[in-house]
Amino acid sequence: MASARDEMLRGVRGMAGRTLRLEDAIPKENAIVLGTLADLHARLPQLAANLKEDAFLLKTVGSAIVVTAVNDRGVLYGVFALLRKIALGESIEHLNEQQTPRAAIRWVNQWDNLDGSIERGYGGQSIFWDNGRARADLSRVSEYGRLLASLGINGCAINNVNADRRILLSDFSPQIAAIAAALRPWGVRTVVSIDFGSPKSIGGLDTFDPLDPRVAAWWKAKMDELYAAVPDLAGVVMKADSEGRVGPSAYGRTHADAANVVARALQPHGGLILYRGFVYDHHMDWNNPKNDRARAAYDNFVSSDGKFDPNVVIQIKNGPIAFQVREPASPLLGALKKTRQAIELQITQEYMGQGRALVFLVPQWKETLDFQMGDGRVSGFLDAFAGVANVGLDENWFGNPMSQVNLYGYGRLAWNPDLSARQIAGEWTALTFGSSETIVRLLLSSWRTYENYTGPLGLQTLTDIVGNHYGVAVEASERNGWGQWHRADEKGVGMDRTVETGTGYIGQYRPAVARIFQANCPDDLLLFFHHVPYGYRLHSGKTVIQTIYDLHYEGAEAVEGYVREWKTLEGRVDEQRYTQVLHQLEYQAGQAQVWRDAVTNWFFRTSNIADEKHRVGNYPGRVEAEAMTLSGYEAVAVTPWETASGGKAVECHHAQGCSASFYFEGEPGWHTIRVQYFDQSNGAARYQVFVGAQRVDEWRADDRLPTKRLDGTSSARRTISGIALRKGDEIRIDGTPDQGETAAFDYVEIR
Amino acid sequence: MASARDEMLRGVRGMAGRTLRLEDAIPKENAIVLGTLADLHARLPQLAANLKEDAFLLKTVGSAIVVTAVNDRGVLYGVFALLRKIALGESIEHLNEQQTPRAAIRWVNQWDNLDGSIERGYGGQSIFWDNGRARADLSRVSEYGRLLASLGINGCAINNVNADRRILLSDFSPQIAAIAAALRPWGVRTVVSIDFGSPKSIGGLDTFDPLDPRVAAWWKAKMDELYAAVPDLAGVVMKADSEGRVGPSAYGRTHADAANVVARALQPHGGLILYRGFVYDHHMDWNNPKNDRARAAYDNFVSSDGKFDPNVVIQIKNGPIAFQVREPASPLLGALKKTRQAIELQITQEYMGQGRALVFLVPQWKETLDFQMGDGRVSGFLDAFAGVANVGLDENWFGNPMSQVNLYGYGRLAWNPDLSARQIAGEWTALTFGSSETIVRLLLSSWRTYENYTGPLGLQTLTDIVGNHYGVAVEASERNGWGQWHRADEKGVGMDRTVETGTGYIGQYRPAVARIFQANCPDDLLLFFHHVPYGYRLHSGKTVIQTIYDLHYEGAEAVEGYVREWKTLEGRVDEQRYTQVLHQLEYQAGQAQVWRDAVTNWFFRTSNIADEKHRVGNYPGRVEAEAMTLSGYEAVAVTPWETASGGKAVECHHAQGCSASFYFEGEPGWHTIRVQYFDQSNGAARYQVFVGAQRVDEWRADDRLPTKRLDGTSSARRTISGIALRKGDEIRIDGTPDQGETAAFDYVEIR
Repeated sequence: MASARDEMLRGVRGMAGRTLRLEDAIPKENAIVLGTLADLHARLPQLAANLKEDAFLLKTVGSAIVVTAVNDRGVLYGVFALLRKIALGESIEHLNEQQTPRAAIRWVNQWDNLDGSIERGYGGQSIFWDNGRARADLSRVSEYGRLLASLGINGCAINNVNADRRILLSDFSPQIAAIAAALRPWGVRTVVSIDFGSPKSIGGLDTFDPLDPRVAAWWKAKMDELYAAVPDLAGVVMKADSEGRVGPSAYGRTHADAANVVARALQPHGGLILYRGFVYDHHMDWNNPKNDRARAAYDNFVSSDGKFDPNVVIQIKNGPIAFQVREPASPLLGALKKTRQAIELQITQEYMGQGRALVFLVPQWKETLDFQMGDGRVSGFLDAFAGVANVGLDENWFGNPMSQVNLYGYGRLAWNPDLSARQIAGEWTALTFGSSETIVRLLLSSWRTYENYTGPLGLQTLTDIVGNHYGVAVEASERNGWGQWHRADEKGVGMDRTVETGTGYIGQYRPAVARIFQANCPDDLLLFFHHVPYGYRLHSGKTVIQTIYDLHYEGAEAVEGYVREWKTLEGRVDEQRYTQVLHQLEYQAGQAQVWRDAVTNWFFRTSNIADEKHRVGNYPGRVEAEAMTLSGYEAVAVTPWETASGGKAVECHHAQGCSASFYFEGEPGWHTIRVQYFDQSNGAARYQVFVGAQRVDEWRADDRLPTKRLDGTSSARRTISGIALRKGDEIRIDGTPDQGETAAFDYVEIR
Repeated sequence: MASARDEMLRGVRGMAGRTLRLEDAIPKENAIVLGTLADLHARLPQLAANLKEDAFLLKTVGSAIVVTAVNDRGVLYGVFALLRKIALGESIEHLNEQQTPRAAIRWVNQWDNLDGSIERGYGGQSIFWDNGRARADLSRVSEYGRLLASLGINGCAINNVNADRRILLSDFSPQIAAIAAALRPWGVRTVVSIDFGSPKSIGGLDTFDPLDPRVAAWWKAKMDELYAAVPDLAGVVMKADSEGRVGPSAYGRTHADAANVVARALQPHGGLILYRGFVYDHHMDWNNPKNDRARAAYDNFVSSDGKFDPNVVIQIKNGPIAFQVREPASPLLGALKKTRQAIELQITQEYMGQGRALVFLVPQWKETLDFQMGDGRVSGFLDAFAGVANVGLDENWFGNPMSQVNLYGYGRLAWNPDLSARQIAGEWTALTFGSSETIVRLLLSSWRTYENYTGPLGLQTLTDIVGNHYGVAVEASERNGWGQWHRADEKGVGMDRTVETGTGYIGQYRPAVARIFQANCPDDLLLFFHHVPYGYRLHSGKTVIQTIYDLHYEGAEAVEGYVREWKTLEGRVDEQRYTQVLHQLEYQAGQAQVWRDAVTNWFFRTSNIADEKHRVGNYPGRVEAEAMTLSGYEAVAVTPWETASGGKAVECHHAQGCSASFYFEGEPGWHTIRVQYFDQSNGAARYQVFVGAQRVDEWRADDRLPTKRLDGTSSARRTISGIALRKGDEIRIDGTPDQGETAAFDYVEIR
C-alpha cells in the first residue's frame, strides 16, 4: 500500500508537476482514494465490488477517483493502471473499470547463476548475485520489482533453473531473504530454483529417492527452514531429468513422485512448485527416423495427469522444442485435464538475435495463446505464466533499448492474453518514445522478418544449436543427439512427424488439429511436420526451394528497410536512443545478409536447384577477399563453409599488418563500399580502407560477439557511403591484428 | 594547408555524408579546389586576385569552387567560411566572394596559471598547463586551435597576463614549444605573457631598468633563445606597473621605455609586443573627489604617443575601468595617433555572471566598436583585437553551453566589426542548435537584462569588487583605493567626472563627445559621469531612484521570462543541453531576484524614498526564516545586510539537523513554494520541506559557488511547484549541515 501511494504521487508529479496531498480522511476537494475494500468500507459504504485476489476497481465516486482491491497488491496494480491511462492520454472521467488477471500465477524466471553470470542473458551481469552471494547493492532489484509490479507480475525466480545446489544450504537463506526484502514492497514474491538431488548432494543423505521417507522429511525440514527466512516465498521451480539434471528416473520414480515430495513440504506454507515440462533425452539416435524430441514433453507428462498434488503446476514451453523462431503450440498444453499448467515463454532473445536483433515476440506468443486446440484455445487452459526474462545490470536491462517491449508484452499478456499485439505495441511505443506508427510498424513485422531470414517454413532457427545459439549454421542441428533435426538432404527437407510414416508426433494433438497438420498443413509449419521434395508446391503455388530463397531475400531487405524507416525518426526520438537503435539496426541489416547468403547457398549447393531470380550465387559488385591482391593476408577456409562468401576469408598473422587490394571496375560516380569483416570476442583488430592514397575510413573490431572463430556469428559489416570512384581506382584494405583477432574479412561489396 | 584539406573533407562528410576525393590535378568533374594563389597560378591562370595576408577568395571557376588566398592560413579560413555557408544553408552557386580581416592581429589571451588554475576562468582547469608544466595530453589544445581557426583567430597567449616569471626560464621553452606544436596546424601562433621584472628575478641581473644596456642585452638573448624553440612565436603580452606588477616606474622610466626594450629584442624575429594599457593605481585616496581611476589609461599613455617602436601595440580595454556591465568607450581608443592599438575585450564573464548567467556580450562590444569618437568610429582605429577567453577543460569550454556564443562573436567581430549582433546571434544559434528565433531573442536581450538587475544607469556591476566579482554587494566599491566608486549617499548617486566640478575625466574625450557626456548624457551612462540627486529626472521623465527600482524589477522579471521561453524549446533542443540551460536559467532567475532585492533595498534605505509601485520592502507570500518557529536553527545577521531579506538568515549548528516551521495563511489551492537558501562552496547541506507530515521535496546544496560565506553569492533558490495547500497547514524546513555548510536559509515565499 505504501508503494501504491508513493507511485501515485511520483506518477502525478512526473506527468502533471503536482504533488498530491496525503490525507487520512477523504477530503471535500477532488481526490484519488487508495485502499482495499475493507479499508474503505466504513468511509465509502456505497462502494461494493466482487473482486478476486490482485484484481482492481477504478471507479469515480463523487469528486474522487477510487482505486480499490481486496489486497494491497491489487491496489498497486490499480494505481499503475490509472497512471498508464493518464500517460496514454485516455479519459479518466466517470471511471468504472474492473480488471481481473486471467491467471493468478504471473511469474518471471531469471536464469541467474550465483557467480553473477546469467545463462542466456544479454543485458549484463546479474542484478541479484555476485561472487556467490546476494549483491551488496540491491537497488536494481528494487527497481526491477517496481518494473514487474507495473506489469502485474507477482513472482520472480531469482536463480537459474539449472539450479546451483548451494541455494538450499542452511547458511545461504539470509542471501535469499535480502533479495526478497527488495522485491516485497512491490508485491513480487520470491521464487527459488532448486536441484532435485539436494537431499544427497548437500543434505547428508545417501539418496534423493522421492519415495524414501528420509528424503521427504529432508524436504519438509528444508522448506520449513527456508520459509522461516522468507515467510512469503511464492514457491520453487524445478527442472529434473533433463539436459543433465538428475531426476526421479534415477530411482525409477515418476515426475509426479518428484514433484509431490517437494509440493508436500511446501504445502503447509502455501507454496507452489512449478515443475518444468521441458524434459527430453539429448542423446537420441539421429539415425532412427522414429525418434523425435518434440514428442518428449507430452510423452513424459500426459500419463501422470491426475497424480500431481494441487500445489504442483507443470511449466510447459510454448512449443515442443525450445523457443525456436517458429514452432506449433505444444500438444501438452491443455492435455493435462487434472493438472494445473503454466505456459513458459522466453522473453530473453536466446534464439532471436540475443538482444542484437529487433524482434517483437508478442505476435509469436499470441499465435500460441490464441491457438485453437480443438477443445479450446490455449490461453483458456492456463493457470500460470512463466516468462524467462534474464534482465541484467545494463541501464536498459536487456543490452538494447528495444527488447524491453518483450517484457512489457509478456506482463500485459499474463494479465490479459486477449490483448492484441498491435495494442501492446502501441501502448509500449507511446509510453516509451511517444506515439509513433513507424515504430509500431517495425515492431509488428519484426518477428516475421527475423523468421524469414533465419528459418522460415517451420525449419526452426537455423543457428548454431550446439554452440552459442546466435549465428547461422545450417547443419548444426543435424547428426547429433539434440534432436532439432530438419533432415535436409539433396532431395528434400523437413521432419516427418506424421503418424503414418513419421515419428507420430502429430498424433499427440487432438484429432481436429492433427487432421490439419497432417493433410492441410499451413506453409509456415510445413517443414516442421513434413519431409517434402524441394519442388513441392506450397499453398502459395511456389516451390519450397524458391520460397526458401525468396523469404531470405525478403527478410534481409526488410531489415534494410528498418534502417531507412528508423532514420525518419531522427529528431523525434532522443539522440541517445536514436543512435543506439540505429546502430543496432545497421548491424542487424549486415547480419541478415550473412544469414540470407548462408542459408540460400547451403540449400542451393544441397538441392542443386537454382534461384529463379538469379540472386543466389550472383553478387554484383562483390569482390572476394581471397581474389584480391594480398600482401601478408592469407586465404583461409571458414567453417561452416556457408558462413563466408565463397567459403573463404583472409586472415592476417603479422603484427605490423597486412593489405588486400583490387581495382574498381564499375561505373564512375558516388558509391557505397561495404566491407564484410569478422569481429570476434578476442582483441580489437584495426581496419583502414584506402581509395588510391586516400584513407576513406578506419575502424576497430571491438564488439564482443560470442565467438572467437570466423563464422556467421562474428561476420559483421562496415558501410562506407558517399565515396567517389572512377574505373580503375585501386581500393585497399589494411588490417592490423590484435590479441588473436586476425583482422580477417570476407569480401568487399561496392554499390 | 593540410588542416584546410582535412576540414573540407570532414565538413562535407559530416554534412553531406560524402567523402570528397583527393586529387593533385584539377579534375573534369565538379570539384573544390584549395590552394594559395601561387599554388594555383599554373593551373588556373585566369584566377587573379589582390589579396592581403589571411584574406581569402571563394570563387566559382567552371565546375569548380576555388578557395584561395596568399597564405595557407587564408585558405583554411576560406574553407571554414565555405563550410559555414553550407551549414547555414546559403547558396554556394556562382561564388565570387573575397573577405579580408579588418585587423591583422586577432588574438585571444588565456589567463592560465602554470599550476593549471585559470584566473577568472569558469570552464574547468587549464587546457595548457598542469602542475607547472605543459599538460601531457594536449589534445584539447589542438581542438581549441581548430575552434579558434574556424573564427579567424591567429594568435593565442597561453599564460596569465599576471605572468609567472618561470615562463622565461631557459629550461622551460620545450613546454612552450609543445603547446605551439599543437596550435601550429591551425594557423594559431603562440604568444607568451611575460614579467617585466624578469631580468632581475630570473636573469641574474641586479636591475630591470629598461634603459640599462645589460637589461636590453638580456632581453635580446632571451628572445633569441625563445625563438630558437618556437620560431613562429607571434610575440608577447606584458602588463607592467599595474595591480602589483613591477614596471618602468621603479626606475622613473616611461611605458615606451619598457615596451621598446622588449620590442627591440623581438624585432629581428618579426615578433610583436602587446603592451597593456590597463595601468592604474589601486591605492587611490577615496576621500579626494578629484581622484579617478577612469582617467588612468589615457593619462598614462597619451603623452608617450609617437615614442613606441613599430612592433609595439597598446592593448586598451573597451572601457576606462575594467569590463563592467556598462562603461563608455575608453577615450584612449584612437587618441594615440602614432601608435598601434588593440582593443581588449573580455569573453570570459568575470563581471557578467561567471558562466552562470546568460549574457551575450556582442551588443556591448558593438556599442564600443561602433562608437563615434568625434574623429571616427572606434573600430576604425584598431590594428588589433585581444579577447580574454579563458576556456578550460570542460567539454563545453566555458562551464555551460551558452557562453560559447561570446567566443564565436568575438572571433567574428575581430574579423569584421561591422557584423551586427543580430547576424552573429543568428549564425551561432543556427550552427549550434538549428535556427531558433526564441534563442536569438534571448541572446539579444540578455546583456540589457543583466545590466538592469545588476547595475543600470552607468552604476557599473554592483558586485563584490574586492572579492569574487560575482554576487551583489552594493558598497563593496566604496571607501577603498580600487576606484570603482559610485558615491551613492543619502542625497544622491554617481561619480562626478565633469571638467567643471568633477574629476575632469570627460575632458579626455574629443570635444564633440565630451559635450554630449557633459550636457546631454545618455541615461544609460548618467551615473558614470554625473552625481545627481535621487529625484533627478532622466530623459525618460522618470526619477533616478524610481528608475533604479523599475529596472531591477524589469531585469528579474525578464529572466523569469527566459525560463518560460526556454521551456518552449523542449523537444527541439537535444535533451542534455535543454536541461543544462534550463537549470542555468532557473538558477539565474533566483540570482536576479537576490540582486533585485539587495539593490532596491539598499537604495531605499539609503535614499529613504519609497518605490512608487510599493514593491520594495513588500513581498507578498514571503515568510522570513528568522520569523518562523525555530528548533535548533538560530538567526544570524548577514553581511552585507542587503544580500539577505530582512538582513538575516537562520543557520544550523547541530549535526543531527534543525527545523523551522510556520503556518500557511494564504488561500487554498495549488501553490509554488520557493526556499531561498545558501549554497556555499564548502559541504553539501541537506534540506527537506514538509507540508504537515508529508515530505514534498528534498535536495542538497552541492553547487560550488565562489564563497564560504552567507551572502549574495551563495544565496540560491529552490522552487517546489504544484503543492496543494490549505489555510493553517504547517510548513516545515528541516536542514542538516555538512562540513561547515550550515543548512542556512533566508526565507520561504509561497505563491
